[in-house]
Amino acid sequence: MRNDDTIVAVATPAGVGGIAVLRLSGHDALAIALHHLRPANPDASRPFSLAPRRATYCRFDDLDDLVAVYFPVGYTGQPTVELSCHGSRYVQQALLQALIDSGARLAERGEFTMRAFLNGRLDLSQAEAVADLIDAVTPAQHRLAVSQLRGGYAEQLKTLRSQLVDLTALLELELDFSQEDVQFADRTQLRQLLSTLIARLSTLISSFSAGNALKQGIPVAIVGRPNAGKSSLLNALLADDRAIVSPLPGTTRDTVEELLTIDGLSFRFIDTAGLRSTLDPVEALGVQRSRKAAAQARIILYVHDATTPWADPDLDLDPATQRLIVVLNKSDLTPHCPLPTTNYQLPTAHSPLPLSSLTGAGLDDLRRALVDAAGNPADTDILLSNPRHRDALLRVQQALSAALQGLDDGLPADLLAVDLRDALYHLGTITGQVASSEVLDSVFSRFCIGK
Amino acid sequence: MRNDDTIVAVATPAGVGGIAVLRLSGHDALAIALHHLRPANPDASRPFSLAPRRATYCRFDDLDDLVAVYFPVGYTGQPTVELSCHGSRYVQQALLQALIDSGARLAERGEFTMRAFLNGRLDLSQAEAVADLIDAVTPAQHRLAVSQLRGGYAEQLKTLRSQLVDLTALLELELDFSQEDVQFADRTQLRQLLSTLIARLSTLISSFSAGNALKQGIPVAIVGRPNAGKSSLLNALLADDRAIVSPLPGTTRDTVEELLTIDGLSFRFIDTAGLRSTLDPVEALGVQRSRKAAAQARIILYVHDATTPWADPDLDLDPATQRLIVVLNKSDLTPHCPLPTTNYQLPTAHSPLPLSSLTGAGLDDLRRALVDAAGNPADTDILLSNPRHRDALLRVQQALSAALQGLDDGLPADLLAVDLRDALYHLGTITGQVASSEVLDSVFSRFCIGK
Repeated sequence: MRNDDTIVAVATPAGVGGIAVLRLSGHDALAIALHHLRPANPDASRPFSLAPRRATYCRFDDLDDLVAVYFPVGYTGQPTVELSCHGSRYVQQALLQALIDSGARLAERGEFTMRAFLNGRLDLSQAEAVADLIDAVTPAQHRLAVSQLRGGYAEQLKTLRSQLVDLTALLELELDFSQEDVQFADRTQLRQLLSTLIARLSTLISSFSAGNALKQGIPVAIVGRPNAGKSSLLNALLADDRAIVSPLPGTTRDTVEELLTIDGLSFRFIDTAGLRSTLDPVEALGVQRSRKAAAQARIILYVHDATTPWADPDLDLDPATQRLIVVLNKSDLTPHCPLPTTNYQLPTAHSPLPLSSLTGAGLDDLRRALVDAAGNPADTDILLSNPRHRDALLRVQQALSAALQGLDDGLPADLLAVDLRDALYHLGTITGQVASSEVLDSVFSRFCIGK
Repeated sequence: MRNDDTIVAVATPAGVGGIAVLRLSGHDALAIALHHLRPANPDASRPFSLAPRRATYCRFDDLDDLVAVYFPVGYTGQPTVELSCHGSRYVQQALLQALIDSGARLAERGEFTMRAFLNGRLDLSQAEAVADLIDAVTPAQHRLAVSQLRGGYAEQLKTLRSQLVDLTALLELELDFSQEDVQFADRTQLRQLLSTLIARLSTLISSFSAGNALKQGIPVAIVGRPNAGKSSLLNALLADDRAIVSPLPGTTRDTVEELLTIDGLSFRFIDTAGLRSTLDPVEALGVQRSRKAAAQARIILYVHDATTPWADPDLDLDPATQRLIVVLNKSDLTPHCPLPTTNYQLPTAHSPLPLSSLTGAGLDDLRRALVDAAGNPADTDILLSNPRHRDALLRVQQALSAALQGLDDGLPADLLAVDLRDALYHLGTITGQVASSEVLDSVFSRFCIGK
């Protein structure tokens, strides 16, 4: 893929609308556009051109009257022309075809943003944030992407990197004088620095769970004995909120899961098979999957049928990372809903919530409990939300741990330097200082065409 | 509905994309936009404003970085600000909400174009052409809308109108002198003029069938005896072309009909029940509907099963307006497909086409035959395509015919003038010189929001 040929795509959403915007970018963008444009008013006597950054009303061949803007240095870092045309299917297709016929090439997915990266307008983590920004549906997802795009996160990585570079430089200085057996780098200080870096990485890596939950939706497993009313509870939540939830085509990754936005937070509900001992192998598989979903969820919604005797839920919870909410369903059938009297220590801040999926009573309490249990991860400083970055940071951490171990084992500087350079390499893959074409392809294939 | 409060809407197609454009128009458009915008680069020292027609990169609250353009006189004829933001669902919604919170109002369907009309930027027939332009899928539909938008059609109506005005003025001059029993208007010349106008109207009205066919798709009725392979022929045509036909959600008005574009012309295929005499009342209804579809179609595709003996089709065709194409289907089963020997005079320029829906043989010949049979209505000068205009022109014609009749009957000038004013009134409804709010509502309700 050359980086200065002229690419073109429709940048606005696919479909029909009042207007659509075509983006043309590359070395010949202006020339190709001017090949088709002339004044909308044929009486205009002055020679036609596009003044930089000026919205100019003009006629495109005999196809459409539109507004063109020429950016000498556009989003891609290259000359760019944006055409706001009528948003019919025909106009969009015909204009694209005309521009391709005169030398432009249809852009690949994310190619405009890839060029912005290749031309140094964005680092790779910011480019990825552009895709996250476009996918964002909730305010929390949006804030996360904006913070990553504006570079707060990249700034933190940059600090890490410069500290690592300093360390490595010190060690490599020793290598130049290795015949003389000197130690420029103070080993105690080195150990100190490495430990600090590893701790900082741990914080960042552990924010992934919260960051990813924001991006993908906070996972909530709905568990309970068969017929406790798990599915009807989910339907009640969904039906009640359908009006305020925007439809999310393409967002739900798994048809068994349902996304719901409450107070600007996205929750991903996983409806599970009823929990009970069973000899039926198929049902047993379902129960096993329920336990697994519960183990990975950040919130466990345990649904108990209030018309039946309380039974302690058979769940392994990690109180450090998981929250339990107990719901006493069908409470409309037992007006004086008996709270469970049990020695079982519920790892929940809430007392069990009486609720009726049928009448909707208690749904608001449940929503509040869900938002409470989610905490407010959006307020946390910098959140890691990208699995690719998490993998890279884990590798950085491993390399630094190896270096620390090497220090303790009294390894020579050249061996320590290998680990540090390894760490630098993996750090560099995040922002794109080092990036293979495979990484780039995988990053930009997430994009839509036209971005 | 006030005409200078500030309205806002997303102007680009609904959905997620690289960018989306919000349009803000009305008296306070600039002030409302500036309430949220500031320089994207916080170091900028100069006071922030939007220079007219200049694409300015700026930050919208803490929500997005975007490009804003201020048009002192925009599409609506009013101050307009266009914001090109990131095309996520969240950004589009959040920006809309923020602008509404600071005083804008969500635009009604077509309200931007309605303002353009009310401010004299377009006449009503041009405003309608904007909606047609956005709906256009084929080149022919597009050309029709562009020609209407650029005013060739409005020009013709204007000429008609000024001739009518002159006539009426002459007659009304007589009224002022009615005591004196003079005739300023030469009755012979008057009759001449009226006849010319009526003839011109007839031409225009009769172009409706072709214009409407271009817009809605040229109606093709597929008829034939049961099991002749009508549906499989349609499927073969559709399947074969699926790759080059763009999907047309919302275009197909009737699920029984299928739209197909061949050589830039849109054909609307109506698959009908098999034609045969039947005693089954339900089937009889279907056959009756088939005959009706055939009667209204411009092209009749008669499908004959080549493995059965030829039988003359039982159809009433109007050779002036309808074309017949005979297809000998299942020709793969009868390699030496016998052409029908019959005294039946086929009103078709083509000999019957051997074809196989199964193998696809003959489909190209059929496509060519369809395009031939359609003629090339797009080359015709001005085509009437809007049912509202046709109704109005019919009323104009009626009024003028009444005036002509009145002349013949020697009616006095004041009675003739009533008919002429009636004609003028109906002519005025097309371009909007006279337009009730009901007409405006009905015209602009066809639009999408944001146009």
